[in-house]
Amino acid sequence: MGLVVLKFGGSSVADTEAIQRVAWTIAETYSEGNNVVTVLSAQADTTDELIRKAKELNPNPSMREMDVLLSTGEQASVALMAMALEKLGLPVVSLTGWQIGMNTDSDYGSARIKSLSAERLKAELDRRRIVLVAGFQGVNKFDDITTIGRGGSDTTAVAIAVALNADLCKIYTDVDGVYTADPNKVPGAKKLDEITYDEMIELASLGAQILHNRSVEMAKRYGVKMEVLSSLHRKPGTIIKGVTKVEHTKISGVAKDSNIARIALVGLRDEPGVAFKVFRVLANAKINIDIILQSIGRDFTNDISFTVSREDMNKAIEILEENKDVIGYTEINTTDKIAKISIVGAGMMSSPGVAAMMFEALYDSKINIAMISTSEIKVSVLVDENDADRSVATIHAKFFGA
Amino acid sequence: MGLVVLKFGGSSVADTEAIQRVAWTIAETYSEGNNVVTVLSAQADTTDELIRKAKELNPNPSMREMDVLLSTGEQASVALMAMALEKLGLPVVSLTGWQIGMNTDSDYGSARIKSLSAERLKAELDRRRIVLVAGFQGVNKFDDITTIGRGGSDTTAVAIAVALNADLCKIYTDVDGVYTADPNKVPGAKKLDEITYDEMIELASLGAQILHNRSVEMAKRYGVKMEVLSSLHRKPGTIIKGVTKVEHTKISGVAKDSNIARIALVGLRDEPGVAFKVFRVLANAKINIDIILQSIGRDFTNDISFTVSREDMNKAIEILEENKDVIGYTEINTTDKIAKISIVGAGMMSSPGVAAMMFEALYDSKINIAMISTSEIKVSVLVDENDADRSVATIHAKFFGA
Repeated sequence: MGLVVLKFGGSSVADTEAIQRVAWTIAETYSEGNNVVTVLSAQADTTDELIRKAKELNPNPSMREMDVLLSTGEQASVALMAMALEKLGLPVVSLTGWQIGMNTDSDYGSARIKSLSAERLKAELDRRRIVLVAGFQGVNKFDDITTIGRGGSDTTAVAIAVALNADLCKIYTDVDGVYTADPNKVPGAKKLDEITYDEMIELASLGAQILHNRSVEMAKRYGVKMEVLSSLHRKPGTIIKGVTKVEHTKISGVAKDSNIARIALVGLRDEPGVAFKVFRVLANAKINIDIILQSIGRDFTNDISFTVSREDMNKAIEILEENKDVIGYTEINTTDKIAKISIVGAGMMSSPGVAAMMFEALYDSKINIAMISTSEIKVSVLVDENDADRSVATIHAKFFGA
Repeated sequence: MGLVVLKFGGSSVADTEAIQRVAWTIAETYSEGNNVVTVLSAQADTTDELIRKAKELNPNPSMREMDVLLSTGEQASVALMAMALEKLGLPVVSLTGWQIGMNTDSDYGSARIKSLSAERLKAELDRRRIVLVAGFQGVNKFDDITTIGRGGSDTTAVAIAVALNADLCKIYTDVDGVYTADPNKVPGAKKLDEITYDEMIELASLGAQILHNRSVEMAKRYGVKMEVLSSLHRKPGTIIKGVTKVEHTKISGVAKDSNIARIALVGLRDEPGVAFKVFRVLANAKINIDIILQSIGRDFTNDISFTVSREDMNKAIEILEENKDVIGYTEINTTDKIAKISIVGAGMMSSPGVAAMMFEALYDSKINIAMISTSEIKVSVLVDENDADRSVATIHAKFFGA
């Protein structure tokens, strides 16, 4: 008997059948003697429908009112799930963000959790009730409703697991775990039994969009054990925790990120502060930079290349052009016909041959590398967009076999 | 410059166009220099759709969870309206029941308002913001969401008008005021400029379903001036207040209520406590009784006839049959092929000929009267259902001309 936090996304509660299926999963976990808190997202399509209504009235509504609107979706989900569990004869109570004291800052639309007063949650669990919590939402110090942005329900679940010192936080998704590569693209992709927080964070940021990083980062900080598993099939998923005992492969996965564009500033003056100026103006515009490469050009000038997400590309170019005199460069080159391929593995740096194996795989397949970036636990390369899937396949085959 | 509370129902916010139309009405009221609080219902169809989803999962869900579910409808309405007003460049804030401190008891589905802490409302008005309030909802002492039942948004509006000492509470509906009879049925029906609370309460309970009685009763208790007016046409409606100066007609209206059934208990023992027993068992089952008529039968027995709403008829019969031995009667006769026709007027009792004029009108049209009931400000008769519309027409013609 333990305390388990479950989280189901929008497609898992999309309609009556889906809700009933999830109700059975919750009922089973509860019947095994566990205390159960379940976090739900809004029903699939509900959020889109609410946004459509909003945009018809006002293409640019305030984020405060958007949060008031969107938070109704999760509230409806938990009420409906409560009814499904009542039908099964189980004691249940649904709670909203403000009811569980999910306190956030006032950054509407992407608020940060500041604290969670677990009082109400504990009182309900002490009565052996199944507690359903509306994900994604909180309340700020003015008692105004906030939403905590992308991946918000995952983060809600982990925050509750932290506050209640839960034994496990199970995130149910439409995949049955974390794979060494995208199983839909790479036939030999293998499911991992375990993965470390750091590896998961790198994989997530590299395009394996299973969990949002905020939730994994929080789980890492407080040592909450997570499990990613399928909401459709009854089998174990992938456990995410601090240290894994698995050592049989040097890397845990190969990931592809196609949502990427490269910008190169050519002919920067070779003087202190140039890089600072470039990335300061972009940071002010809230543009996230990924890989940065600085190289020495000709005639005492430098070139700086970096990558941004594709949706930020035009904005980044615009801002750099506005600041051309301040920064001082001769031209901007850009392309979005590229993809980033990465290998991730916690033990990578202690195994010197790993990066070389990756480059060898690409060389074997005659794939050109445009940029390279490395960190403690990953190696990323930029390749031509057309070579992306082939790159993943050949690297995966090199490390895991065909 | 004053403080005005406006209330719009579900059809007034049914879609983008309707919301925009209401936004203009609010904007106009605000621009005239008034402080404005607007109470909104859920968008038409939203509540039905939520109930449909609920019933699919559980035909008999708990009222607590039903309230969590249904309260999302009003919350979405106020957020959308806020966006429409933001589009017009106006300062606006939307608030839910718990945010305005609308404290109720815990009778989920039909909670009673206990108190309203006007602090937040006043703070927002002091900042010259238009305040939008989700109607129909409150919060109990456990911080659980409640709804305040039928006519809930009207009652929300009046409660706010009371708490803020508003100058006027304007209820926008799909009719443009209170008429001397149903204008769709009686060609000569006239709109009233003014009507007293008591008259309005009698008319409402008699089937002129413009306002729910709870709201008018509250307005009467605290002396809040109300106005019923059209959300579609820009013209004055009907003012509801304590004393009206209008004296030109003896009655203020003729109303019909077809949602009525008559139950007669025949052969009751002629002994003390019989009526008590009958109405106690019905009250315990929360069945409302309207007209009661007790008559002396044969052989030291009594008959008691009374009316209930049609949806309560079968339940009432069932309960009376279960308690046949306790109550002691020989048979039950029932019919729902009847209608109640009433005339209402504050000055009625000081004008002795009024009831007689009504009976005369019915006699002229050869309409048989089954039961008669009178109060301070009304006279009601039961007639055959087939005679109902003809009864209204002939009575109306008698008092107001054809």
